[in-house]
Amino acid sequence: MSILIKNVILNEKETDILIQGNTISKIQPNIQDKADKIINGKDKAVIPSFMNSHTHAAMNLLRGYADDMELHDWLQNKIWPLEAKLTNEELYWGTKLACLEMIKSGITFFNDMYFFKPEQPGKNAITAAIESGIRMCAGHVLLDFNPENRKKEFELQKQLISYVKELNNPLISVAVNPHSIYACSKQALLECKKIADENNLNIHIHLSETEKEVKDCLKQNKLRPVEYLEKIGFFKGKIGNIIAAHVIHVNDNEIKILKKYQVKIAHTPVSNMKLCSGMLPYAKLKKSGLTINLGTDGCASNNNLDMLEEMKFATLLQKINYKNPTLMPAKEAFELLTINPAKTFELNCGEIKEGNLADLLLIDLKNINLNPRHNLISNLVYSANRSCIDTTICNGKILMLNKKVPGEKEIIEKANEVAMKLVGR
Amino acid sequence: MSILIKNVILNEKETDILIQGNTISKIQPNIQDKADKIINGKDKAVIPSFMNSHTHAAMNLLRGYADDMELHDWLQNKIWPLEAKLTNEELYWGTKLACLEMIKSGITFFNDMYFFKPEQPGKNAITAAIESGIRMCAGHVLLDFNPENRKKEFELQKQLISYVKELNNPLISVAVNPHSIYACSKQALLECKKIADENNLNIHIHLSETEKEVKDCLKQNKLRPVEYLEKIGFFKGKIGNIIAAHVIHVNDNEIKILKKYQVKIAHTPVSNMKLCSGMLPYAKLKKSGLTINLGTDGCASNNNLDMLEEMKFATLLQKINYKNPTLMPAKEAFELLTINPAKTFELNCGEIKEGNLADLLLIDLKNINLNPRHNLISNLVYSANRSCIDTTICNGKILMLNKKVPGEKEIIEKANEVAMKLVGR
Repeated sequence: MSILIKNVILNEKETDILIQGNTISKIQPNIQDKADKIINGKDKAVIPSFMNSHTHAAMNLLRGYADDMELHDWLQNKIWPLEAKLTNEELYWGTKLACLEMIKSGITFFNDMYFFKPEQPGKNAITAAIESGIRMCAGHVLLDFNPENRKKEFELQKQLISYVKELNNPLISVAVNPHSIYACSKQALLECKKIADENNLNIHIHLSETEKEVKDCLKQNKLRPVEYLEKIGFFKGKIGNIIAAHVIHVNDNEIKILKKYQVKIAHTPVSNMKLCSGMLPYAKLKKSGLTINLGTDGCASNNNLDMLEEMKFATLLQKINYKNPTLMPAKEAFELLTINPAKTFELNCGEIKEGNLADLLLIDLKNINLNPRHNLISNLVYSANRSCIDTTICNGKILMLNKKVPGEKEIIEKANEVAMKLVGR
Repeated sequence: MSILIKNVILNEKETDILIQGNTISKIQPNIQDKADKIINGKDKAVIPSFMNSHTHAAMNLLRGYADDMELHDWLQNKIWPLEAKLTNEELYWGTKLACLEMIKSGITFFNDMYFFKPEQPGKNAITAAIESGIRMCAGHVLLDFNPENRKKEFELQKQLISYVKELNNPLISVAVNPHSIYACSKQALLECKKIADENNLNIHIHLSETEKEVKDCLKQNKLRPVEYLEKIGFFKGKIGNIIAAHVIHVNDNEIKILKKYQVKIAHTPVSNMKLCSGMLPYAKLKKSGLTINLGTDGCASNNNLDMLEEMKFATLLQKINYKNPTLMPAKEAFELLTINPAKTFELNCGEIKEGNLADLLLIDLKNINLNPRHNLISNLVYSANRSCIDTTICNGKILMLNKKVPGEKEIIEKANEVAMKLVGR
């Protein structure tokens, strides 16, 4: 399959772009090569597609189900009781809905952390991602409440790794997902790291999200969360394969440790604001040279999967956090969902250049939110919404064209039905 | 002109709605009356349209022109030099673009503060609003730098008031707009209030936006801004006709004064974050019983006119401000752009009921951001973007139908052209 995009704007200049297979093979004006599909790029700009570095995709089923609550009330009385009942059918339809929303929002990769249920037959969250055509790093969230449960959870981790290996799908990868230091024992954390290192996988973990997490850790271990992880040897072995979500309540020593072990950060500003977790110490983390990526978190605490919106929240939250309007300028905010996660997840994308994966978006320059056209990146960061995205291409395949995704009505209808059944309506 | 909306969802129930002239005349299932226009409301919900309580509409021309700068650098080197050059043609096209964006974002009223230039022939900002069909409270921002300029500015105020009276257009009102305590002398402030009272108009002023404003006022007057305004007698005369934008840096005594004189607040969270002005003390203001309304501010410090986005920023900013996730729940956030401004601007709208003005929106319930359908208000506040808005009706007139506004392409094209010329490209 080859795609030729004619007369599209790239860095303020008009050009053609040829995609062959899954790769951007040629960028130059007036390409004469034949292609299976020609897209008229007139009045459109091409930009890299977005990467969602931390989410719980199937939670899309819970969008709007419970808001404006205290964290523990919310978790214990609303979220956990429903999650305990989740079946593969619900995980499948929740992830279908999430993937559809992500395609419509320009996202072509998501780092997921949710449930793998191989004991249930039929389709699951990974099936949903494969059908959607976007990239997924799958994970089964490991909750380690007692030794028996721990054994079962590690069994699932192993099954998930085998399952993904057998799929042998270049779009689907897998990571090891210990939930957090407060939901996993030392033993479980170290076992997770061992499995990750042995299988050359990433670790994906929640870290230093709330003040309570820090207080409890200090009480139990006389150490702050990052110090505790260093102490128990969690950072040993392979360096640079840990993606930590949130990382809000860290002091200078903890930042040093994170830097030493090249821990990657998944920042989720909307969720952090909605749940009142706190504000990422962005300026300090950035200064230390850590790689910061953006994520939406799950839909129950956001309540959407819109990286354009997330990016505006990210930069505005940091400006007010540090009382510095020059902090995280538009170009830097844009990197949090493109170049930075491409590095973090070792994907050859995040920039439009020859040889890169054809993971890209066509942006509708006639959209009112992108006019006047003083500055495209500023307009994308501070003004745009997903109605500005016209076309989404992942791995050389067109997933959305002219704002239409094949089958979208049916997915929305069915996911809504499944969600209503889940909450007992 | 009459409009019959069939089978639309209102408060979770299906009904018909009949609009006659500019009024919602009947709400009940299965209305049999004839109507000039019938709209199929299937899979749509009807909600009140939004009111934008503080903006500088024509600044839409400057969207993305200058971001990520220190406030004074930004104003002195970017915004003011351009504003000094603004012609009526630019004010007209900037406001055309703004009104179009507002219609597409569900806004049918805006409280404007910008420039009136009667010495220039032809169309102006008010013409643009009239052509668009949305309600405008017009204002000429009064900057009082020297006695000669003051005289000229008050002449313009008077001319603007006469101009709007002569228009005799029910959609166009006018207010008196002293810029702020730091850009207006005591004499000018009092003169503004006198003119407003005599003509039964609102005052629209920036107040306590930055810490600098408070510090300077303390230095010059030994009083904080609100105390200063009380001291000079600005609040005397008619009560309840002052709309103050921002109102961030106020202490308990100032809140008492604001309450005593029923000052209405226009809160602009996105602008406050982008310019690092600070966080509105919402819980205190709310507790004191003050009426709080939402505004987008101008496009140069936002950079859009999207009340759905503004609403999400408002509630999330307050949650993190007070570290309280239960603060400003969805329903309350929704009131900031509907019921509250309807009271503030004394318009018989903000709710869908018989006898109210037909200022309303049809929402596309099939939009992915509104699914699953656990809770429409939550979905509107936390998940929606303007692609969820299908139809905008103002004063009984359809301004947008099926997401299309007549002539939108031409407005965007021409406004972009005018903006490029303005910045010298």
